[in-house]
Parts: sequence; structure tokens; C-alpha cells
Amino acid sequence: MKEVRYFFVPNANVEKELPIEEAIHALRVLRLKEGDEIFLMDGEGCFYQAEVSLATSKKCFYTIKQVLKQEPTWHGRIHLAIAPTKDMGRMEWMTEKATEIGFDEITFLNCKFSERKVLRTDRIEKIVVSAMKQSHKAWKPIVNDMTPFCNFIDNHTCDGQKYICHCYSEILKDDFFSLINSSSESTHLASEDDHSLNNDITVLVGPEGDFSIEEVRYAINHGFKSVTLGNSRLRTETAGLSAVMMSQLARRV
Amino acid sequence: MKEVRYFFVPNANVEKELPIEEAIHALRVLRLKEGDEIFLMDGEGCFYQAEVSLATSKKCFYTIKQVLKQEPTWHGRIHLAIAPTKDMGRMEWMTEKATEIGFDEITFLNCKFSERKVLRTDRIEKIVVSAMKQSHKAWKPIVNDMTPFCNFIDNHTCDGQKYICHCYSEILKDDFFSLINSSSESTHLASEDDHSLNNDITVLVGPEGDFSIEEVRYAINHGFKSVTLGNSRLRTETAGLSAVMMSQLARRV
Repeated sequence: MKEVRYFFVPNANVEKELPIEEAIHALRVLRLKEGDEIFLMDGEGCFYQAEVSLATSKKCFYTIKQVLKQEPTWHGRIHLAIAPTKDMGRMEWMTEKATEIGFDEITFLNCKFSERKVLRTDRIEKIVVSAMKQSHKAWKPIVNDMTPFCNFIDNHTCDGQKYICHCYSEILKDDFFSLINSSSESTHLASEDDHSLNNDITVLVGPEGDFSIEEVRYAINHGFKSVTLGNSRLRTETAGLSAVMMSQLARRV
Repeated sequence: MKEVRYFFVPNANVEKELPIEEAIHALRVLRLKEGDEIFLMDGEGCFYQAEVSLATSKKCFYTIKQVLKQEPTWHGRIHLAIAPTKDMGRMEWMTEKATEIGFDEITFLNCKFSERKVLRTDRIEKIVVSAMKQSHKAWKPIVNDMTPFCNFIDNHTCDGQKYICHCYSEILKDDFFSLINSSSESTHLASEDDHSLNNDITVLVGPEGDFSIEEVRYAINHGFKSVTLGNSRLRTETAGLSAVMMSQLARRV
């Protein structure tokens, strides 16, 4: 069985050529030739059935045969903002899994108790693209640079629901999954037109040592709801993935 | 802040001494001495607050101060049967994450398209124990050896719900999460006494190349329901973890 080859090409309908890294993979690994069928994904909701029109030693041109516009499989946008773990491997697999499951945006937070203050988002970006190809996603999740916690809170003025997960017993917490499920139901009842705005979920997950209590209070004062992901004591990366999976289950079409 | 030290001690209330590996960790890494407080978990629903009563160079004895019996945080048993991936690392992290999130049993399946036919369950066992300590779980998930697919189906005669996840479009599939959620609601309505039996979930996840269609049909003929985990194309380990996470959400107290 001939394997289908997926390539990530932003603006695939304007470009006529695979980006350099994709071209090298196409030519040297897959050894594609003129006439071979390929699939392109633009990361913005479209697949393209295409054909290699010219293959040189370093360049791979294509002709689009068919545009396959995709319908979103979930309502609203799912945005995870997370303090990265010391061990980068844990953030990398979390991002891979979140991309497979489906989410829209990831921001890395620099928090008071963060053990990691710098992060190479180019590696994360590569993992996202690879997972997106592997799981045939038409939309590419946005990867944002490390942002100081307070800057994120101050500048995050979306209309959707905003949540902060934490473990402080002295601050009242609601159950995240119950909240996003009920908000989903009420949105569906309230208006069919206004989906994208109100279904948006932004969820914050803290570092290994949790957010500081001041950070939690700051977020709450800025409209974030205080939540728990359940009874289990989860590592940062497991909490991040659980938050994405719960959001996906609550928002899927 | 003094870190709480958790040790896994099967039959902790009968034994008076830490098992050899735990003792070495206690003595050489944590350098515990007589009088130090420790926490034991027996993997069968109990924590024990204890005190080191005697610490020699290789042995660590304890006295139990308090038995802390735990209430389960989910109904019924969650059993994942999965064909292991070629890359063992992927199975290892899945098992770690499933333990953190909470499940009861894992069986590795030898399927027609399995790329891995042998597996060291002792490594998986160690990962389970470590994740159990890290996430403070009182119950230890059972790790079963690799089992041929048909043997598993033939011998799996539990009273709970049984599901097989697959990707064949020619076989009708229901949505796994919707099914287990509705079965949970009907069980709650039907009987409060008979919880453990009917809430049990066994879910099968296939190898990278999926189950064979004959395997899927064999399972269906033996009472397994044909299901999908949703719209996303997931890797084997992501599917396994998703199935556990969905089961946990549907069965949590």
C-alpha cells in the first residue's frame, strides 16, 4: 500500500514549491518524482491534493489538483498556558499529545516557582508540525514564546471562559470539567450564532511547585475562574494534557 | 519543608520491614534514621503513617502509628488492554500517565499486526510503583503479561462493559465516551448496591496498524462493543491514555 505523504506548507495555495526542509524530506527520504501524489496542509483548515510537477536535487514544485476545506471538529478555541517543566522532554511529549488530541494554542508561562525560565520554542514548533502531519490535522496550533505570568494575565482579554488550575485548599475551587461542560450546554442553548466567542477556553497550569498563591489571586481578580482537574495529584505535563483532553471532550462537535 | 517519604510495601500491616529496594533508597539516598516519619502504601487501599524503628546498613524496620484507609475515587474497575508499541518508551510514559490519572489494570495484547511481541513487564511494574508514589495512589494497578489476543477475549468473562476501539469504517462504531457516560448514569439509577460489577470498564486498543478486522469481529462476537475514541487520529499510546482518561471522567466519584 502506497503511503500518503503529508507536507506542511503555510499558504499552500499561493506557494508553488515545498519549503526547504519539506523538500529535502520529499526528495532525499521519500525519493518523490514528477507525477507523484502528495498531500499538503496549510495549518489553517485546508488540505490540498497535489502532484509533484518538478523535482530537482533541492527543490520540489507542485501543482494543486484539489482543495479539501475541512470543517472544525470542535467549537471555539482551546488555549493552554503552562509553566514548562524542568525536563524539556516532558513538555515535548505533552505538546505532541495535545496536538494529536486537538487544541489551538499553547503559551509557556514564566511563574514565580518556575524551574525553567527559558525554552526553545523552535523545537516545540517542530514537534507540533510533526504531530499535526501524523494525526492529519488541518489546523496548526499556535506556539507562543515564554511570557511572564502577569503579562499574560494583563493582556489576555478574550471573551471566552478563563480558568486557573491550582492546588491551594484555602481558595475555593470548582471542578473544571463540570464547569466547561455546563458552559458548553448553556452556550448551545443561548445562541447558535455566537459560537466561536463564548466557547473559547483558556486554561492555566502551574509549574512543579504550583503557582504562588498571589499569582492565583491575581488571575482570579482578572476574571479567571479557580478550578481543580479532579482528585488526582498530577504532574505538570499530565495536568496540561488532562486540561486539553477535558476541553476537547467538552467542545467536540 | 520536610518532604514526606512514601514507600510501597505490600502487606504493610503484616511486614515490619521495608522491602530491600525501598530500604536501600530509605537508608542510602534519604538517609533516614530511627524516629523519622515515613508513609507506607500497600497498593490495596491503605496508607500507613509509620516511624523508622531500626535502621541498620541494609535493613529498615518500622512501626505503624496510624492506618489511613482510603475511599476509592472512582466507581468500578478500569482495565486497559493494549497492543504495545514498537518503541517501549511510549508504553512506559502511557503507563506512568495512566497511573497518575487513575486506572486498575493493564494487559498487553499480542495481536496480528503487533510490532512488538515481547515486553519486560518488570520495567512497567517499576514505572507503575513510582507513579503511584508520586501521585499518592493507595491502589496499585495490576500489570499483566503479554497475552495472545484471542486468549484474552476467550478468558475475559467480567460482568462489566467491554469495548474494542478500532478504525474500520465498514464496522459500525459508537462513541466510547458517550456510551460509558450513559452506562454510568443508568447504573446509578438502576441500583446503588451493585456498583462495582456494572461500572467495570474493559477497553481494548490495537497496535500501530490497528487490530485485524477478524480480531475486531471476534471481539464483537464475544460481547465487546465496537467503539471510536472520537474524530482524532491518535497514536496507540495516545489512544490508550485517552481511553483511560475518558473512563476516569465517566466513573469518578
